[in-house]
Amino acid sequence: MIKGILFDLDDTLYNSSEFVSIARREAVKSMIDAGLNVSLDEAMEILNKIIKDKGSNYGKHFDDLVKSVLGRYDPMIIATGIITYHNVKVALLRPYPNTIKTLIELKKMSLKLGVLTDGLTIKQWEKLIRLGIHTFFDEVITSEEFGLGKPHLEFFKYGLKRFGLKGEEVIYVGDRIDRDIEPAKKVGMITVRILRGKYKDMEGKADYTIKDLWELIEIVKKLREGGQ
Amino acid sequence: MIKGILFDLDDTLYNSSEFVSIARREAVKSMIDAGLNVSLDEAMEILNKIIKDKGSNYGKHFDDLVKSVLGRYDPMIIATGIITYHNVKVALLRPYPNTIKTLIELKKMSLKLGVLTDGLTIKQWEKLIRLGIHTFFDEVITSEEFGLGKPHLEFFKYGLKRFGLKGEEVIYVGDRIDRDIEPAKKVGMITVRILRGKYKDMEGKADYTIKDLWELIEIVKKLREGGQ
Repeated sequence: MIKGILFDLDDTLYNSSEFVSIARREAVKSMIDAGLNVSLDEAMEILNKIIKDKGSNYGKHFDDLVKSVLGRYDPMIIATGIITYHNVKVALLRPYPNTIKTLIELKKMSLKLGVLTDGLTIKQWEKLIRLGIHTFFDEVITSEEFGLGKPHLEFFKYGLKRFGLKGEEVIYVGDRIDRDIEPAKKVGMITVRILRGKYKDMEGKADYTIKDLWELIEIVKKLREGGQ
Repeated sequence: MIKGILFDLDDTLYNSSEFVSIARREAVKSMIDAGLNVSLDEAMEILNKIIKDKGSNYGKHFDDLVKSVLGRYDPMIIATGIITYHNVKVALLRPYPNTIKTLIELKKMSLKLGVLTDGLTIKQWEKLIRLGIHTFFDEVITSEEFGLGKPHLEFFKYGLKRFGLKGEEVIYVGDRIDRDIEPAKKVGMITVRILRGKYKDMEGKADYTIKDLWELIEIVKKLREGGQ
């Protein structure tokens, strides 16, 4: 019997790839406008390398970009980039179509709902609150909080423990085969892959594949009818 | 001959006391609404004590408040407070009346303009950019950047060095007797106290005392007519 659903956050409940790409690009454009003497393409290439090398939670990407281009620290240009990034975040952060409608329907079906996501705890909560969907979730679990992230099986097992449920009682919904679907399957969860974001063409198979979150309702109904 | 003007930022160019007080209060209200089980008065008392003990640049005030009230870490409540604080910042940050008009007029008088302020470099730049006044300043100097803040005379001397000017060629404008006016006077600057913010009733005397930044124009004109 399905009793709970755990969701990935980025690119599953909202369009993270698109948001991040626009926010970074607009931030860099504003920095060029403020005096960062470089072409947009070159700046994006340098920034992407910094993000790849230092990780997305590093926190000083724009500092390093400015230092790399100008050879010095320029707080005005850095602050300009930060403000633009933040303004784009406030403007663009919204759930994928049908997300809220689906969460309401799942609540009506008496399911426990949770988010199991990589990332910094406060940053992920900030996204959930700005998306207006945080109140739907009984559990929000981050890799920062647990100390280990995806695709570690311990992280997924910890999700089950927080729910107080067994693997076969829980559906995991995520966009990535390697970091969401495979580990969730290994701990015994029923897996639903949503074809969203930059990994939607990645090879691999989940128990179910959907294009829109609303399709989850039919999957839960069928599983329950089948005794699951 | 007056050749430059250095300004304090908080409570001199914008209403920092009012902004911070509203932002903190609204943030706490939103945290209570999100489940922080405490009265507004009690929460504000705890928060003010945390800010006093840890300093205003500590960065984890809301974390400590939540831990103090609930005895545990609650990222949803903390993130709620951070979002509200930020929203209030975006909404309320604006210069005092006549600030921009005065800066334009001073520029027309061929004066070098600068900001000499305590605080974190990026945060102070973020304020200047959000206030829409950063392009007026030839120099922006922060205590974080210099390594020492007000009322250290070295900090004020460093301001003169950045301008390449002598004390008698520079006016310092600030709201605080103890941290702005006295040290600026000691390094030989001409001092202008602006009666703004929570220190406006503090005892002490500057060379000039004004209520509105626009009065600075007459002071500069008179000083120049007098050969200064």
